Amino acid sequence: MSAQYFTGDQEFFTGIGAIRFEGPRSDNPLAFKFYDPAKKIAGKTMKEHLRFAIAYWHSFCADGADPFGRASHDFPWNHANPMTAAHLKAQAAFEFFTKIGAPYYCFHDADVAPEGDNVDEYQKNYWEIARIFRTLQDKTGVKLLWNTANLFSHPRYMNGAATNPDFNVVARAALQIQTCLDVNVFLGGEGYTFWGGREGYMSLWNTDMKREAAHMGTFLRMARDYGRRIGFSGAYYIEPKPMEPSKHQYDYDAATSIGFIKEQGLEKDFRLNIENNHATLAGHTFAHELQVASDAGLLGSVDANQGDAQNGWDTDEFPCDVYQTVEAMMVILRSGGFTTGGLNFDAKRRRNSTDMEDLFIAHILGFDTFALGLTLADRIISDGVVDDLLAKRYSSFDSGSGADFEKGKLTLEQLAGIGKTAPQTKTSGKQEYIQSLVNQYLFG
Amino acid sequence: MSAQYFTGDQEFFTGIGAIRFEGPRSDNPLAFKFYDPAKKIAGKTMKEHLRFAIAYWHSFCADGADPFGRASHDFPWNHANPMTAAHLKAQAAFEFFTKIGAPYYCFHDADVAPEGDNVDEYQKNYWEIARIFRTLQDKTGVKLLWNTANLFSHPRYMNGAATNPDFNVVARAALQIQTCLDVNVFLGGEGYTFWGGREGYMSLWNTDMKREAAHMGTFLRMARDYGRRIGFSGAYYIEPKPMEPSKHQYDYDAATSIGFIKEQGLEKDFRLNIENNHATLAGHTFAHELQVASDAGLLGSVDANQGDAQNGWDTDEFPCDVYQTVEAMMVILRSGGFTTGGLNFDAKRRRNSTDMEDLFIAHILGFDTFALGLTLADRIISDGVVDDLLAKRYSSFDSGSGADFEKGKLTLEQLAGIGKTAPQTKTSGKQEYIQSLVNQYLFG
Amino acid sequence: MSAQYFTGDQEFFTGIGAIRFEGPRSDNPLAFKFYDPAKKIAGKTMKEHLRFAIAYWHSFCADGADPFGRASHDFPWNHANPMTAAHLKAQAAFEFFTKIGAPYYCFHDADVAPEGDNVDEYQKNYWEIARIFRTLQDKTGVKLLWNTANLFSHPRYMNGAATNPDFNVVARAALQIQTCLDVNVFLGGEGYTFWGGREGYMSLWNTDMKREAAHMGTFLRMARDYGRRIGFSGAYYIEPKPMEPSKHQYDYDAATSIGFIKEQGLEKDFRLNIENNHATLAGHTFAHELQVASDAGLLGSVDANQGDAQNGWDTDEFPCDVYQTVEAMMVILRSGGFTTGGLNFDAKRRRNSTDMEDLFIAHILGFDTFALGLTLADRIISDGVVDDLLAKRYSSFDSGSGADFEKGKLTLEQLAGIGKTAPQTKTSGKQEYIQSLVNQYLFG
Amino acid sequence: MSAQYFTGDQEFFTGIGAIRFEGPRSDNPLAFKFYDPAKKIAGKTMKEHLRFAIAYWHSFCADGADPFGRASHDFPWNHANPMTAAHLKAQAAFEFFTKIGAPYYCFHDADVAPEGDNVDEYQKNYWEIARIFRTLQDKTGVKLLWNTANLFSHPRYMNGAATNPDFNVVARAALQIQTCLDVNVFLGGEGYTFWGGREGYMSLWNTDMKREAAHMGTFLRMARDYGRRIGFSGAYYIEPKPMEPSKHQYDYDAATSIGFIKEQGLEKDFRLNIENNHATLAGHTFAHELQVASDAGLLGSVDANQGDAQNGWDTDEFPCDVYQTVEAMMVILRSGGFTTGGLNFDAKRRRNSTDMEDLFIAHILGFDTFALGLTLADRIISDGVVDDLLAKRYSSFDSGSGADFEKGKLTLEQLAGIGKTAPQTKTSGKQEYIQSLVNQYLFG
Repeated sequence: MSAQYFTGDQEFFTGIGAIRFEGPRSDNPLAFKFYDPAKKIAGKTMKEHLRFAIAYWHSFCADGADPFGRASHDFPWNHANPMTAAHLKAQAAFEFFTKIGAPYYCFHDADVAPEGDNVDEYQKNYWEIARIFRTLQDKTGVKLLWNTANLFSHPRYMNGAATNPDFNVVARAALQIQTCLDVNVFLGGEGYTFWGGREGYMSLWNTDMKREAAHMGTFLRMARDYGRRIGFSGAYYIEPKPMEPSKHQYDYDAATSIGFIKEQGLEKDFRLNIENNHATLAGHTFAHELQVASDAGLLGSVDANQGDAQNGWDTDEFPCDVYQTVEAMMVILRSGGFTTGGLNFDAKRRRNSTDMEDLFIAHILGFDTFALGLTLADRIISDGVVDDLLAKRYSSFDSGSGADFEKGKLTLEQLAGIGKTAPQTKTSGKQEYIQSLVNQYLFG
Repeated sequence: MSAQYFTGDQEFFTGIGAIRFEGPRSDNPLAFKFYDPAKKIAGKTMKEHLRFAIAYWHSFCADGADPFGRASHDFPWNHANPMTAAHLKAQAAFEFFTKIGAPYYCFHDADVAPEGDNVDEYQKNYWEIARIFRTLQDKTGVKLLWNTANLFSHPRYMNGAATNPDFNVVARAALQIQTCLDVNVFLGGEGYTFWGGREGYMSLWNTDMKREAAHMGTFLRMARDYGRRIGFSGAYYIEPKPMEPSKHQYDYDAATSIGFIKEQGLEKDFRLNIENNHATLAGHTFAHELQVASDAGLLGSVDANQGDAQNGWDTDEFPCDVYQTVEAMMVILRSGGFTTGGLNFDAKRRRNSTDMEDLFIAHILGFDTFALGLTLADRIISDGVVDDLLAKRYSSFDSGSGADFEKGKLTLEQLAGIGKTAPQTKTSGKQEYIQSLVNQYLFG
Repeated sequence: MSAQYFTGDQEFFTGIGAIRFEGPRSDNPLAFKFYDPAKKIAGKTMKEHLRFAIAYWHSFCADGADPFGRASHDFPWNHANPMTAAHLKAQAAFEFFTKIGAPYYCFHDADVAPEGDNVDEYQKNYWEIARIFRTLQDKTGVKLLWNTANLFSHPRYMNGAATNPDFNVVARAALQIQTCLDVNVFLGGEGYTFWGGREGYMSLWNTDMKREAAHMGTFLRMARDYGRRIGFSGAYYIEPKPMEPSKHQYDYDAATSIGFIKEQGLEKDFRLNIENNHATLAGHTFAHELQVASDAGLLGSVDANQGDAQNGWDTDEFPCDVYQTVEAMMVILRSGGFTTGGLNFDAKRRRNSTDMEDLFIAHILGFDTFALGLTLADRIISDGVVDDLLAKRYSSFDSGSGADFEKGKLTLEQLAGIGKTAPQTKTSGKQEYIQSLVNQYLFG
Repeated sequence: MSAQYFTGDQEFFTGIGAIRFEGPRSDNPLAFKFYDPAKKIAGKTMKEHLRFAIAYWHSFCADGADPFGRASHDFPWNHANPMTAAHLKAQAAFEFFTKIGAPYYCFHDADVAPEGDNVDEYQKNYWEIARIFRTLQDKTGVKLLWNTANLFSHPRYMNGAATNPDFNVVARAALQIQTCLDVNVFLGGEGYTFWGGREGYMSLWNTDMKREAAHMGTFLRMARDYGRRIGFSGAYYIEPKPMEPSKHQYDYDAATSIGFIKEQGLEKDFRLNIENNHATLAGHTFAHELQVASDAGLLGSVDANQGDAQNGWDTDEFPCDVYQTVEAMMVILRSGGFTTGGLNFDAKRRRNSTDMEDLFIAHILGFDTFALGLTLADRIISDGVVDDLLAKRYSSFDSGSGADFEKGKLTLEQLAGIGKTAPQTKTSGKQEYIQSLVNQYLFG
C-alpha cells in the first residue's frame, strides 16, 4: 500500500508520506525520479540490487556541527532526558526508514543510546534500545545491515582503541565490541563493521607501528572468534580510511587493508566496506577501491557517499555524480552483486540544509544517483561493447604461449626467447573512444 | 691521497678534484661540510653506514629536459657516434664516482648503451659497456649497488611491460630483464631493482587489473628463478610509486607492494626500495614508508631524494631537509642498517643548475644532508631519551594480562572482563615535548 | 556540402572524411553524437556559441612523449627536412580543421616552424609558414583564434622570459613577442595569448619576486602598446596556471591574475584564458575560475580540457565530464557568450591512443561533451528554476534597508542597529535539492 | 625577577612558574632552550622582534574535540556558571601569559564571554570581561595584539556573515563587529582582524559570488570607517584561508586578498594576517605568502602555526620546523619587522597532549622554533652571502638598457632590437648551492 510507513505515537516527519517513484519529469522534490524499487534489472529488482541502508549517525545524530561551528539542525526527538530522546529517536528513525523505503539501517553503539556513567549503564541503555529496535524491525521488516562500536569519540580512545599503547584501554574497547556483537546477533545483523577511527598515529616519533598493528590483528581475531561462538554468521568488515582524525590510519586503503587481513589470517571472515570519500582521500577513485577489493574476493559492502575533489577532508556528501555511481555499479554487478553487504548512505546533508525535508531530499538524491548508476551500468554490461573491447585487448593470453605464460609454464629464458622475435605492435588503448561510448550510454 | 680519483684518457670534470671533508665552516662549495667518510659512528664509518650510490640516469643522461622544455645541460661526452658517447660517458661516470667518493652506482640498461635497431644490437651494445664497467670497477673499487631494466621509455611499453595486454610485449620485456640479470651477475651487483614505470593503468575502463596483477606476479617469479639459477644471490627490489607516468601504478606504496610480494610468494627474495618523493606522492612521509617496510622485514634499499610538498609530480630533488634524513636514518639504524642496499641518489640537479660543478654541489648537498641525518639519528638513539619514552608508553604490554593479550592467550570475553573494571587514564602522547627534544638534538 | 574539406597535394587523414552529426544512437566512432553545428540554441547555432579551436601543438606536434617515455605517435608529415615538414604539417592541420569542422585554430610560434639557428632564420621560417596559413585560411574559412610565443621550451628561458633575471633574455623574449604579434595581425587573429610557462620560480631563495613581477608588468604593457600600434584590435589573454614546470607560477589562478592585471593597468586590453586543468591544479573548479573571471568582466577565452583529480600535474585530457561542461557553459552563457574568445582544445590524446583516428575520436569526444554542456546549460537557464532559486535567495537586498546597504548608504552603527532586532532565521541552502534538479536536467 | 607572574585568587597552573631561558643543553621541559627574551639581535631584543601573542581560543577554550571525538582537555576554570567560568578563564589566561612571558594576546568575542540569549546579554557579558581584561592588562603589562568577531560558530552564520544571502544576518554581524571594535579601542588593541570563517560558498550552484563579494567590500568599508571614527588607529587585518569549513573561502590566499583589498579601496587601512597552515592549504609555502604580502606593502601580522603536508585540513600545530621559521623570519626582517603585528600562536596542542603542562611545552616549542628562526635568519642576512648572490643575479637591470627597461623607457621594438643581438647565456640558478649554504647556517 502506498502510504505504508511506520509511525510511533508521535509522527516526526509530518507532512511527508512514503516517498514514491514519479519518474524523471516529476517536479515533486519528495519523489524518486530514477529509483523505482520494484523495477527489474538483470533479474532482480532495483531494491534487491541496491540494498540501501540508512546511517543512524548522520541522519539522526549529526546536528550540523563542524570544526568551526555548532549544531544547526534541530531534532524534534531531542529531549532533556537522554533515554527518552533515544526512544523517540529510534521511532523517528524507523519512521524515516519506512517513509524513504530503505530495507536496511546501520548504527554505532554511541548513536543509539547514551553511554551513561559506567559500563553497566552503557550496557543497560544499549540493550534497552536494542529491544526497541527488534520490535521495530519486526513491525516494519527493516533489517540491520551492520552495526559497529564507536571507539573514537570518547577521550579514552584518543590514543587509539585496539592499538592504544595502554592495555587497559584495549580491554575497555573489547567490552564495547563484545556488547556490539551480542546486540548484532540479537538483531540478526547481516554484517559487522570495524572502522578504526583512531587506529593510526598522530606522530611516528611516539609510535611503535609494528606493535600496534600486531595488537590490532590479535584483537580482531579475538572479536571474530567471539562472534562466531555466539552465532554471528555474517561478514566482518574493515573500512579503509587513510587519515582523519589521525594523521595516518592503519587501514589506509583497500590494498593496505587486504594485506593486513591476509597477514593476520582473517581472510575467511573479513571483507571490505569501501567508502567513496575515503577512496578519494587516499588518492584513489571509488571504482579503483571497489575493483581492488573485488579482485581479492573481498568486496563486502559500500559506504555510499561522495567527497569534494578540492577539499582534503571527509565531506561525506550525498552521492550526486552519476559517472561515479555507474563505475561503482559496474564493479559491483560484475562481481555478482551484494550478498551480505549493501549501499549504506554514510552521508550527511550539508550543515546549511536545515529544512527537515532536506533529510529526505538528500536521500532521494542518493537513491536516484545510484539507481541511475545501476541502470546505466547494466545497460553497458548488457550491450557488451565495452566488455568485448576488454576481452579483445587481453586475448593474446587466451591461447598458445600467452596462455602458457599465464599458467606459469614458461621460464624466463623461454619467454625471452619468444620476445626476441615477437612482433612489437603499438595497440591503441582507445581511451577516448570508450569515454565517448560512456557518454552515449549516459546521455544518448 | 688527495688526487686519488680515476680519469680515462680525457678528464671530463676538469678543475675539480676529489671532494674532501672540510667541516661545517668551510666556504668551499666543492667540499663536504658534514660528510666525513672515515668518521666512526656506532662502530662503522659514515661511508659504511650510508653506502652512497650515484644514479647513472640522472647524473649522466638527464639533460634538463622537462615536459615544457628541452635539454639545458650540455655533456662533454655526448658525441655524434652513440657508442663512442657511451664509452666516454662510462669514463666520465667513474671519474665522477671517484671524485665524489661514492662506493656504489646504479643504472638502467637504457642509460648506458644505445639500444640499437634490434635485439642483437641491444645486447651487443649493452655488453660492450658492461665489460668496460667491469674494468672500471676493478680499477676504482666502485661497485654496482643495483641495475634495472628500463621498461617504460620505449613506446612498445606504452601499455605496460609485464602487465601489457599484449603477450608479445611481455615477452620482449623478459628479454630485457634476462639481459640485465646476466649483466648484473657479470658485474657482481648487490641487488636488482624492478621499477614498474608503466605497470599500472591510464583508465580503469580499458583495464583488467586482476589479470594484469597476476601477470606481474608470474613475471617476477620467473625473473627471480632465472636470477637464482645464474648465480644472483643479492636482493631483488620493488620500488613503490603511486602514479606518474600512469594514472595509477600497481606498486602504489610500501603496504601495497608488501601485500603483493606476499600474495605472489616473493617474500624470501624481494625487498623494497623506498623513495622519498614516491612516498610523499602516495600521501605518506618518507619515514612512514621506511617504517612500514622495516616492520615487514622488507626494507632493502633507498632512493635518496626529496619532493616538493606543493608540487604533485616527481621532482626528484637532492635531499636538503635534515628533519627528513634524521627520521629516515632513525628507521634505518634501528632496523640494523643496510645489508645489500644503500642510499642511491635518485635525484637530479634542477634544470637551471647548468654549471657542470652543480652536479658535484648537488651531490655534496645530498651526502651532507644524509651525514647530518646519520649523526643526529645516532645521537638521538644513543641518548635513549626518545626510546625510553617509547618503551614506557607501551610498557603495559610487557607483563601480566597485557603480555597475555600480545601472546594471543586471551579470549574477547576475558579481555572485555578486564575492560569492565580497568581504570581508564588519559595518558598524554607528549608530541610537542618530543618535537622540542628533536630540535634540541638538531640545533642544540 | 557534406564532403567539403580541404586537402593539399597529399591527404594525410586518409579514409576519414568530414565528421558529421549522426545523433546519439550512432555507432560510428567518427561521427558527432551530440554536436550538431547548425542546431540553434538561444538564437545562435552551436557552432557560433562554442567557437571551437584546434590546438596546433597538441594535435600536430605532441608526439606522445612524457617525462618517462619518448614519442609514441608517428606523424606522416614528419620529414628529414624541417621546413618541408612544417609545410606538410600546415596542410595536414587545415585538412584536420576542415574535416573535424573547427572554425578556429591556435598556435605557438615554435609549433609551426623550426626556430633555426638564429633570429633571422627564426623570423624567415615563421613568416614562410604564416604566409601559407593565410592562404589556407582564405581557402577554408578557418580563422585564427589566437597565437602565442613559446617562451618556455628553449633553455635560454630556463630562468623565465619576461621575468628572467638576465636582461638579455628578456630582450630576446621581446623579439619573439614582436614577431608573433606581427604574424597575428597578418593572419587577422582575434586574440593573442600570454602563457608564462616559466614566469615563476623554482626556489624563493634565489628569487626577487617583486622585481620579477614588476618586469612582467612592464613587459606586458610594452607588448600591448606595440600590438595596438600595429593594428591589433583583439583581446590579449593571460592564462593562469599555478605551477609546472616551475614550482610556482606568477599567474597562479584567476584571482591572482586579475589582481596583477589591475595592478599593472592592463584591464582595458587583457582578459583571462581559463583552462580547466589549470583550475584544478590551483585547487579550484573549472566553473569557479570562469565565474571569478566573469565577475571581474575579464572572461576572455577557454582552454578546453580536463585534468585527473588523482594526478597532480597537467594531464590535458579531452573533456568528457558533462557535469563540468554544463557548469562551464552556464557561466559562459550567463556572461553573454564569447566575443573574441572560444573553446580551444588544449588537450592531447593519451600517449597510448596511437591510432591516427584517435585524434579525431578525441576531438569528437571534446566537441560532444561541450555540445551536451551547452544544450543542458541552456535548458537549465531557460527553465529558470535554478535562477529563480538564486534570485529569491538574495531578494532581501533588492529593496529597503538591504538595498541601502548594497548602495553603501548605511553606516556600521545603522546596520548594527538593524541587526539588534532583525529576526535571525535559518534558511536552508537547498544544495541537495539543486543537485537533484541538475541530475533531472542531465538524465531526465 | 624570577617569580614575576600574575595569579588571581586561584593559581591555575600550579607547580609551574615563570618559564625561563636555560639554553640548548637544558633538560628541563619547562624552560626555553633557544628563546632568550632579552638577547639582542640586530638592535632589538628577541622579545621586541617576535612580539609573541597567545591565542585565547586555542589555549583556553579548545578542549581537544575534533570532528570524530569530544573534549579531551579538562580546564580547571570551567564552571557550571558560564560567567564565573569566563572570569576564572580570564585570570587563568593572564597567569599563563605572564608565566610564558608573552607580551600580547588575541581573542574572539565568543572566546571570552558567553554570548547569552540576546544582544543585550551578549554585550553585557562581553563588556564585563573586557573590563577585567583592562584591569589585568594594567596589572601585567600584557597587551592586546588584536581581537576579532566570531562570525562562524553560531548557526545564524551558516550561510556566511557579511556575505550571507539574508540581509538580516549581515546586520546582526555588524552588531558584533561594532561591539568588538568598541572593546578593542577600550583595550588599546594594536590591530583588529577579520577572518571570514564562512565568507565563501558550499556550492556555486546556489551562490552569487559577485554580489557576495561586493557585500563583503561594503561591509568592511563600513567597519573601517566606524573604527576610525571611534579612535581605532591600528591596522585592520584580513586573514587568508582557502577553504574549510566552506568549500571555498573568498579570502583564498594572499594574492586573492590583496586583489580584493585594492578593488575595494581598503589598502590604506588593511594589512594581511598570514597563517602558515592556511598558506599550505592554499598550495603555497608560508614564506611565499609572507613575501607576496610584503611585496605589496601589506604584510601585517602572522598566525604562527604549522600544518601537516599529508593532511588536507587545518591541523593548527605548534611550529617545530626551523626551516619554515627561518624562511619566515627572513621575509619579516627584510620587510623591516613588525609594527602593529606580531606572531600569534594560532596553534593547539594535540588532542592527546592532555597534561596541563603540555600547554606550556607546546608554546615553548613554538617560542623556541621562532627564536631559532630569528637567530638564523639574522645570521644569513648579516653575512650577506645569500643577499649578494641575489643582487648579482639581477644586476643586469641596475644600469644601462636593463635599467631603462625597468623604468619603462623602452618600446617593444627597442627591446626586441636589443634582443636581436644580445648574447644569450645560460646562468645557473645555483639552487643546490644555496640549499647547502642554508644547511651550513642551520647546522654548522
